[in-house]
Amino acid sequence: MKQSFLFTKTLKSIAAEEKSINAQLLIKGGYTDKLMAGVYTLLPLGLRVINKIEQIIREEINAIGGQEIVMPSLQPKENWEKTGRWSGMDDLYKVTDSGSHEFALGPTHEEVVVPLLKKFINSYKDLPVYIYQFQNKFRMELRSKSGILRGREFLMKDLYSFHLDEKDLDEYYEQAKQAYFNIFKRCGIGQETYLTFALGGTFSKYSHEFQTITQAGEDIIYICPKCKIAYNKEVIDEITKCQSCNLSLKDFKEAKAIEVGNIFKLKTRYSAPFELKYKDQEGQDREVIMGCYGIGLSRLMGTIVEVHHDDKGIIWPLAVAPFQIHLISLKAEKELAKKAEELYNGLITAGFEVLYDDRDESAGLKLNDSDLLGLPIRLVLSPKTLEQDSIEVKLRNSDKVELVKFDQLEKHINKIIKI
Amino acid sequence: MKQSFLFTKTLKSIAAEEKSINAQLLIKGGYTDKLMAGVYTLLPLGLRVINKIEQIIREEINAIGGQEIVMPSLQPKENWEKTGRWSGMDDLYKVTDSGSHEFALGPTHEEVVVPLLKKFINSYKDLPVYIYQFQNKFRMELRSKSGILRGREFLMKDLYSFHLDEKDLDEYYEQAKQAYFNIFKRCGIGQETYLTFALGGTFSKYSHEFQTITQAGEDIIYICPKCKIAYNKEVIDEITKCQSCNLSLKDFKEAKAIEVGNIFKLKTRYSAPFELKYKDQEGQDREVIMGCYGIGLSRLMGTIVEVHHDDKGIIWPLAVAPFQIHLISLKAEKELAKKAEELYNGLITAGFEVLYDDRDESAGLKLNDSDLLGLPIRLVLSPKTLEQDSIEVKLRNSDKVELVKFDQLEKHINKIIKI
Repeated sequence: MKQSFLFTKTLKSIAAEEKSINAQLLIKGGYTDKLMAGVYTLLPLGLRVINKIEQIIREEINAIGGQEIVMPSLQPKENWEKTGRWSGMDDLYKVTDSGSHEFALGPTHEEVVVPLLKKFINSYKDLPVYIYQFQNKFRMELRSKSGILRGREFLMKDLYSFHLDEKDLDEYYEQAKQAYFNIFKRCGIGQETYLTFALGGTFSKYSHEFQTITQAGEDIIYICPKCKIAYNKEVIDEITKCQSCNLSLKDFKEAKAIEVGNIFKLKTRYSAPFELKYKDQEGQDREVIMGCYGIGLSRLMGTIVEVHHDDKGIIWPLAVAPFQIHLISLKAEKELAKKAEELYNGLITAGFEVLYDDRDESAGLKLNDSDLLGLPIRLVLSPKTLEQDSIEVKLRNSDKVELVKFDQLEKHINKIIKI
Repeated sequence: MKQSFLFTKTLKSIAAEEKSINAQLLIKGGYTDKLMAGVYTLLPLGLRVINKIEQIIREEINAIGGQEIVMPSLQPKENWEKTGRWSGMDDLYKVTDSGSHEFALGPTHEEVVVPLLKKFINSYKDLPVYIYQFQNKFRMELRSKSGILRGREFLMKDLYSFHLDEKDLDEYYEQAKQAYFNIFKRCGIGQETYLTFALGGTFSKYSHEFQTITQAGEDIIYICPKCKIAYNKEVIDEITKCQSCNLSLKDFKEAKAIEVGNIFKLKTRYSAPFELKYKDQEGQDREVIMGCYGIGLSRLMGTIVEVHHDDKGIIWPLAVAPFQIHLISLKAEKELAKKAEELYNGLITAGFEVLYDDRDESAGLKLNDSDLLGLPIRLVLSPKTLEQDSIEVKLRNSDKVELVKFDQLEKHINKIIKI
């Protein structure tokens, strides 16, 4: 894409109320726009990042048998009364139509997915089944802060699993854990992200969160340095040693972290109120056992920015960058522009994703914008490099600058991308 | 995809309240599920259709310079008060949070996109610009009927164009018209779809709708048989002859039709209340001129079904079918299943989209399901065809059955797809 085509521009200053680094950088870079507290528009560059994250999650969830659907936001009050959450959930938005019917504005989808599956699950042969979606959630956050980390409206992947028995749930739960590790690794925050014990619910002592260490975190976790498992502060009073390796609590490391995902054994918490049952091999009715697994995509994007930035801007991991390459022509001179255009077309034909800064702006402004936007590979063409049939190659996460011959460029970039 | 993997099944009977053909067939086939009146879940097959439609629209809107974003559903009351639509729009859902703040639940996005563009448009150099999204809309339809044609919650493509002057709007409006014709043609309803004069708004005598002729239509249109332009009944009193070819009204053909898209010259209706202006070449402030262009994707899917079905089921046009090919192994015998599996893998490797009915069900049930689901190309493998190293090929929109040798199959299908 040519940068002159983009309707967004980098902003020099943003509202002083934006304290969080993710909101500052994403708004300044033209990735998102804040409509009001906790409610953001995804601009073209931000949408590209979210689409990359979505595709990574889709691949990993498909790999563990997920079937993708999309459920509605408007949900019948009766369903929420059945589970006791119509009056029991503080952050539930409610909508009334002029016929005085009331609806919930979905903050989660157990109240839709369970009645849906009741239509298709009859026999033990219909299980297990794993259903997921990418869908907007609504939560009445009165104090939305932390930029896009805690929204009133936000895109989420929610997966629900349905099983014959607890053993089957336990096995799938482990598969889901592994899929989550894969997702966070591919999104570039694998090293900072820990499986974390957190409070359970009606039927489980603990649930599991995936917590990413960053100064912007709202949670406190305690990490066992030996086996890399963490414990949320909310459960630490009950813990004296690591549940996995028995290391003593006093050796744990305290850290601030952001919850980027959670997985939860629901068991019969939601199948029971809707009487979601199946007939076993003996023809007996048995309750379906459930699990649920969530990842907030906008929060994940914000977390990646919190982990990967410097004082000049964002440093996108390659797999989630809106474009892999930022091609910059330092001057608008005719000969230089012609060569840049030629390189741009060549790189696109070779299958690379390129943002080409073709604007008639100063070198300083272009380079500053490039650091702010944070694309992984920067190519700078100047009269000096052109003289040498070369272009300057610099990675956003390194200070090293290399001069690469035009005829070696494609090979050179392929080598970078493979690392 | 193997059909045994799909959690949905075809349903023999559905609620008697479903009068519309689109809802009957889409629900029976397991494409959609009705949560409540006007609110539907997209099941795996339905989501595949919507994704195909979305990609066709995306390609055509990108081709006329569209930049894709995603705007929120929760919208500030103040913005809706500015345009006079907070109290002026009957079907606007309103949400109140526990802090007594009120929000609109977006039925359309002028109140978000105009303030957004105000942040990025300063000079004449920033125009024109074309912004679009695929996003869920909410409308308080008290009498939701017609299946998925008229929803309370529905996926829509909305495009907004911003111009220097009316001449530029007029030119883009013609490009958008052409893009819309392309979209409906590619979705398989080109022949049935007419550009239709409809009521205008504050600044335009007429707007334009795209109306698709079908018995399920809620609108009445009058078609000029000579130049293929139509007139909505709501404007017919003002018309005595065709605006384009002067043919007399009495020669027009009356038809029931569904509105599948609309385009509208907004001019300054929304730019004025938000004071969206630009500096012209002389440094003078001038108001931005706008157009808007909508297509409801779920409605479009329902319309395709209304146009393309018979008494056995849906007949998907190739470009929007969830899969191109329905491969059916008539019996679960080992040798047959092995060959079917081999064909399935071969076709997928060759790049075709295949639904493979690997279920242990009767031939009659499988063939009935296949007609209901309506995939364009049906391949049936039976002991009899296997004996002849062949498979039976039948198109859903034809009665002709052909026996094709295995080693000719790929070539044969490629020929069908190219037509």
